Amino acid sequence: MATRRHLANAIRALSMDAVQKANSGHPGAPMGMADIAEVLWNDHLKHNPNNPNWADRDRFILSNGHGSMLIYSLLHLSGYDLPMDSIKTFRQLHSQCAGHPEYGYAPGVETTTGPLGQGITNGVGFAMAEKLMADQFNKPGHDIVNHHTYVFMGDGCLMEGVSHEACALAGTWGLGNLIAFWDDNNISIDGHIDGWYTDDTVKRFEAYGWHVQSVDGHDSDAINAAIEAAKKVTDKPSLICCKTIIGFGSPNKSASHDCHGAALGEEEVALTRKELGWDYEPFVIPEDVYAGWDAKAKGDAAEAEWNKKFDAYAAEYPELAAEFKRRMAGELPADWKQFTDKMIADFNDKAESVASRKASQNIITALAPELPEFIGGSADLTGSNLTSCPSFKHVSGKEPGNYISYGVREFGMFAIMNGMALHGGLLPYGGTFHMFSDYAKSALRMAALMKQRTIAILTHDSIGQGEDGPTHQPIENTAGLRYIPNMDVWRPSDETEVAVAWVAAVERKDGPSSLVLSRQGIPGRKHDTADFEAIRKGAYVLSEAEGGAADVIIIATGSEVDLAVKAQEELKADGVKVRVVSMPSTNVFDRQDQAYKDSVLTPGVKRVSVEAGVTDFWRKYVGLEGGVVGIDTFGESAPGGVLMKHFGFTVENVVKTVKSVL
Amino acid sequence: MATRRHLANAIRALSMDAVQKANSGHPGAPMGMADIAEVLWNDHLKHNPNNPNWADRDRFILSNGHGSMLIYSLLHLSGYDLPMDSIKTFRQLHSQCAGHPEYGYAPGVETTTGPLGQGITNGVGFAMAEKLMADQFNKPGHDIVNHHTYVFMGDGCLMEGVSHEACALAGTWGLGNLIAFWDDNNISIDGHIDGWYTDDTVKRFEAYGWHVQSVDGHDSDAINAAIEAAKKVTDKPSLICCKTIIGFGSPNKSASHDCHGAALGEEEVALTRKELGWDYEPFVIPEDVYAGWDAKAKGDAAEAEWNKKFDAYAAEYPELAAEFKRRMAGELPADWKQFTDKMIADFNDKAESVASRKASQNIITALAPELPEFIGGSADLTGSNLTSCPSFKHVSGKEPGNYISYGVREFGMFAIMNGMALHGGLLPYGGTFHMFSDYAKSALRMAALMKQRTIAILTHDSIGQGEDGPTHQPIENTAGLRYIPNMDVWRPSDETEVAVAWVAAVERKDGPSSLVLSRQGIPGRKHDTADFEAIRKGAYVLSEAEGGAADVIIIATGSEVDLAVKAQEELKADGVKVRVVSMPSTNVFDRQDQAYKDSVLTPGVKRVSVEAGVTDFWRKYVGLEGGVVGIDTFGESAPGGVLMKHFGFTVENVVKTVKSVL
Repeated sequence: MATRRHLANAIRALSMDAVQKANSGHPGAPMGMADIAEVLWNDHLKHNPNNPNWADRDRFILSNGHGSMLIYSLLHLSGYDLPMDSIKTFRQLHSQCAGHPEYGYAPGVETTTGPLGQGITNGVGFAMAEKLMADQFNKPGHDIVNHHTYVFMGDGCLMEGVSHEACALAGTWGLGNLIAFWDDNNISIDGHIDGWYTDDTVKRFEAYGWHVQSVDGHDSDAINAAIEAAKKVTDKPSLICCKTIIGFGSPNKSASHDCHGAALGEEEVALTRKELGWDYEPFVIPEDVYAGWDAKAKGDAAEAEWNKKFDAYAAEYPELAAEFKRRMAGELPADWKQFTDKMIADFNDKAESVASRKASQNIITALAPELPEFIGGSADLTGSNLTSCPSFKHVSGKEPGNYISYGVREFGMFAIMNGMALHGGLLPYGGTFHMFSDYAKSALRMAALMKQRTIAILTHDSIGQGEDGPTHQPIENTAGLRYIPNMDVWRPSDETEVAVAWVAAVERKDGPSSLVLSRQGIPGRKHDTADFEAIRKGAYVLSEAEGGAADVIIIATGSEVDLAVKAQEELKADGVKVRVVSMPSTNVFDRQDQAYKDSVLTPGVKRVSVEAGVTDFWRKYVGLEGGVVGIDTFGESAPGGVLMKHFGFTVENVVKTVKSVL
Repeated sequence: MATRRHLANAIRALSMDAVQKANSGHPGAPMGMADIAEVLWNDHLKHNPNNPNWADRDRFILSNGHGSMLIYSLLHLSGYDLPMDSIKTFRQLHSQCAGHPEYGYAPGVETTTGPLGQGITNGVGFAMAEKLMADQFNKPGHDIVNHHTYVFMGDGCLMEGVSHEACALAGTWGLGNLIAFWDDNNISIDGHIDGWYTDDTVKRFEAYGWHVQSVDGHDSDAINAAIEAAKKVTDKPSLICCKTIIGFGSPNKSASHDCHGAALGEEEVALTRKELGWDYEPFVIPEDVYAGWDAKAKGDAAEAEWNKKFDAYAAEYPELAAEFKRRMAGELPADWKQFTDKMIADFNDKAESVASRKASQNIITALAPELPEFIGGSADLTGSNLTSCPSFKHVSGKEPGNYISYGVREFGMFAIMNGMALHGGLLPYGGTFHMFSDYAKSALRMAALMKQRTIAILTHDSIGQGEDGPTHQPIENTAGLRYIPNMDVWRPSDETEVAVAWVAAVERKDGPSSLVLSRQGIPGRKHDTADFEAIRKGAYVLSEAEGGAADVIIIATGSEVDLAVKAQEELKADGVKVRVVSMPSTNVFDRQDQAYKDSVLTPGVKRVSVEAGVTDFWRKYVGLEGGVVGIDTFGESAPGGVLMKHFGFTVENVVKTVKSVL
C-alpha cells in the first residue's frame, strides 16, 4: 500500500512532468498543495468519478487555477474520464487539459478558474446554492441536498478585492458547508510577499465570522484533523490555513518564485524525482498508486446510497422530487410557453408608460410564481434596480428565501451568481447600476465563457440617469458588454420588449444576458402580436415607412426609440419616408439569417442610429456614410431630461441627422 | 461664539436644504458625519481656502461621494471660492456642485468620488505619494513634504473589494500619514445592514496592520482625542470608527435608510430645523457661524509659514527645490524634447525584433534617468509585464524607491495610481495582463474622467498570449478601452512605435494612456525619421502601394502589422496594389484633422482591418463593405503561434480577405 506521501508525490510528478513537456505552466502550487489534496480527496471528498454530474456531490474548486495540473492530476488519478494522453497534451490545442481549468473541457472541473479571486467567489455561490436548495427541498428525515464546497486558494486569491466581498458575505450567511484551504507559501510572482502582502489572514477571516485553523500543509494527520473539525462547524464557513512549501520536493527551486510559473527544467525534474523517491518514468503511475487513488467504487457506492435516499424522498414527496429533477436539469416548467405567451400578450395589452426598470420589475413579479428557481438580488440598490417583488422573501442564510441583498459588492455578486448557476437548480439574476457593471466586467465575461445562464439587471442605463453625474452615467458600457463573446445584451424600448427580453434570457441555455434598462419613464406602445416573435430576433421593423420604399432607416434602442418614432412623424411631413427599426439586442440580431437581416436593414438604404451611448459602435450597422446620434463624451450632473436635450437627444437633432445623410 | 454642534448644524442645514431644493441627493451621510467633519476641519485640517493648490496641504477625500453636500458645505463655510449660489444650484447643469464631487468643478475637491471604494483607494495613493515625495525631497531639518490624507467613508466603501486591496497595502506600507473615518451607521441603501454586512471592521483593519479606534461620532471631544492619537501613530495608517446616526437631527427619518438617498421632504426639513435649533431660512448662515468656520486667515498663515520653510530649503538645496516645483507643476524636464527625439531615433536605428512588452521595458529603462517622477509598478506580474528596470528600487514604505509591487490587486493599483497622479509630483504607471484591465475598468475610466496622467501597461494583449487560454486572452478588451472617453489606447507594432507611444503618454496633460503590448516577439523595422511624427498622429502610411494608387488599404495594429506588410508583398505579385496603414492609436488618429485622415485613409478606397480582437470595432474605418480579419469568439489554450494560425491570423487569410473585397 502506497504511503500518503507517495500518493501525493504522484501529483507532484505528473505536474512537473506535464509542465516540463509543455514547457509552460505552474508546477509550484500543485507540488505545494499535493499533501492537502491527497487527504481531502482520498478521505473526505464525496464524489463519483463515474458520474461527474451527481447532484449531491461535493464541489471542489481550484481557485488558484494556474495550478491546473493539480486538479488534472486528481481527476486522472481518482478515475475520471481524463486519460493520461490528455495529461500529456497539457496546454495544447483542444486538450481537455487547458492551461487553466476550463468548465466543459475536463469532467470534474466545476468552474473555470484563473482570474484570481473568482474561484473562491464562485465557491461561495456554490455553497449558497447548496444552502438555498437544501432549504427548499430537504424535509425532516430527507436531506437530499447535503454536500460541501471545498476551495483551494493561494495568496493571489486572498489579495484580490473580490475575495473580501465574497468571504465577508459567506461569513454573514454562516456557510458551514464551505471549507476553504489557503496555500500559505509566502510566494507570489513578484517574489517573497513581505513587501506587498502582510495581512494577518487568520484575524481577517475571523473578522468575517469564519472558523479558522492553521496547520502544517505537509502534515497529513494535521490536515485530516482540521478537515474533521471544519466539517463539525456547521454555522460558519471554515478556512484552513496551510503552511506549505511551494514546489515541495524540488531541491533547488522549492520555496522560491522560480517554480511558480515556469517549468523546473529537465535537470531539476530529475533531481526532484530523486528527492521524492519517485522512481518512475514521466507519465507512469504504478498500480499501487492508482489503487490508492481510485475513487470509482467508493463513488458508485456513495451515489447508490444517495439514490436510495432520493427514492425514499420521491415516494413521500413525489412533486418535490420531480421539481428537484427538473430544476437540476435546468429545464423550464411544462407550461412555460403557454404562461409566457400570455404574459407577454397581457403586458402588451396594457401598453403601460413606465421606465424599463419598472417594466422589468413588473415582469419579475409576473414570472416569480412560475419560476421557483429564481434567486434575485441586488448589490444594495434594490429600490433603484427594482429587482425585488412582493412574493419574494429576503434570505441571508438563516431563513429560507429567494432574494439576496448582496451588499455593495457588484463583482462579488456576479461571480457568486456564476457559482450558483454552475451548482444547478437555481436561476440567479442580480442588479446594479449599469455604470457599475464596470466593477464586475470580469464576472460577466466569465459567465459568457462558461455558457452560464445568469441575468444582469443593469438600470440607469444612460445620461438619462440624471443628477448623479458622469460617475454614474454609462457612455461606452453598453457597447462594451455587447462585445463580450456570447453575452446577449438587451436594451428594450417598452414593456413588451422588456417582457420578451426577460423570456429570452430565461430560455437561454448557453449563456448570460444583460438587461440594460432606463431610469426614466418611456411611453407605452401596443404592438401587433406578430412583433412578439420579431422582437425575439433582436431587431425588427417597428414602424414602416409610409407611401413607398424607405428613404432612410432609423435604428434605435431603449429609451431613444421614442425619439425615432417622433422623428419619423416629423420627417413624413417633409416628405421623407422613414422606417424605424427597434433593435433591442444587437447580439441576437447578428445571429439571424441574412434574409431576415436584409428584411430589416434593406441593403443600400441609408441609415441613422439613435442611442445614448458611443457612436462608433453603430458604424457596423450604418456604415461610414450613415448618421449617428449618440454621445462620445462623459455626461454631466443635471436632471435627466435636461441632459438628454443638452447632449442632442431631441427629435429635432434626429431629424437634422437624417436629413444630413440624404 | 457658536458651539461646535451649532457649527456642525450648518452642514446639516445646507445639506438638507440643497437636497430638498434639487429634490435629489443624499442628506443622510452629511447630517451623520457633520460633527466629525467639524472637528477635523476646524481643529486639524491643514489647508488654505485661498489657495486650494498649496503643495503641502492636507488632502481631504469624501470616499462616500454621494454625501457630496458634506464637502460642498465644508468648502463653502471654510471660505473656498464656492459661493452660496453654487450650493443653490446643487445637481443642476454646470453647477460647481455636481451630484457627486467632481475633480475640477469645485475648488478643494481633491478627487472625483461616487464609485464606492475608490475614494479610500485614491486616498491610499495620496498618502503613498506623500511618503514617496517626502523620501525624495525632505532633508534633515527640512520637511517640506509633511501632510496628512484624511478620508471619510461609509459602509459601502468598506464592502467594496477594492477597499480590501488598498487598505491591506496601506497596512504593509505603514502609512502613518493616512487617517480614515468610518461612518458606522448600520444603514445602507437596502436597509439595516445585518443581512449583508456583519464584518468586525476593527478586527479586519487590525489584521491589515492599522491603528484602530472607536468613538461616538457625535462626541466632539472624543473625535478630537481620536484624531490627536491617530496623528501620533506615525508607522501605521489609522482608522477611526465613528458610531453615528444617519440623518442626525431628523426626528422621523434619522437612523433609517429613508434619509439615505432622497430629500427629507419640506415637512421633515422644518421639523429637523426645530430639532436642531437652527432658526434660519434655507441657505442663510449667520455671521457667527461663518466666523467659526472661516479658515482663510489660518490657512494663509500656515501657507506663509510653509513658504518660509521652503525658502530655507531652496537656499540650501536650490536644485532640489527647483525640481520639486517642476514636478509639482507637472512639467517635463527642460531637455525632454531633445532627450526623447534622440531616444526614439536610437531605438529606430537598432530596429530590434522584440515583443512590444520588451520594447516597453527598453524604453522605461531609457526614460528612467530622465524622469525621476516615474513611479512604476505591477500587480504582481513584474517579470511578465516587464515594468521594472535595473535603475529602479523597490519601495514599500520603508526605504525610498520608485518601483511598487502592488500585489495581485489590479483595481487597487490603478485607483491608487489615480490618487498619486492627483497628489502631484509623480508620474505613475502600472502593469498587468491586458485581460485583467477588466478588474480595473472603473479606475481606468476614472483617470479619464479626471483627466489624470496615468499610464497602464497592458501586456499579453491577444490570443498570442498562448497557453494560459481564454481566461487570459483579450478579445473585446482593446476595443472596450478605446471607447472610454478621453482614454488614449496605443497598440504599437514595433519598438519605434512603442517609444513614440511612451513619449506621447508621458507628454499627455489631460488624460491617461493605455499601452497594449504583445507577449510574443515582433519583427524589427527601421522607419524613415518622417514616420516619428506620423506615428504620433495615431495612424500613418507605413508602406505605400507601389505602381499607382492603392486598390485597397490594409489597416493593422500591433503584432498584426507584420501580417499586413507580408500580405502587401504577396498581393503585389498578384497585381493588387496595397497600402499598409499602421494604426497604433485609433483615439489619437480620430483627433487629427480631416485632411490628414483622408491622406491616410483615402476616401472611396476599399479597406481591410487586421487586429487580433473583435471585428465590429473596425467597421468605423472599413465600413460595411470592407473586410475584417479579427476574432469574435473566446480563445483557446495552446502555444501562441498555433492559436494565431488557428484563428486565421495568417498572411494567407489576409490576402484572401483583401481579394474578397475587391
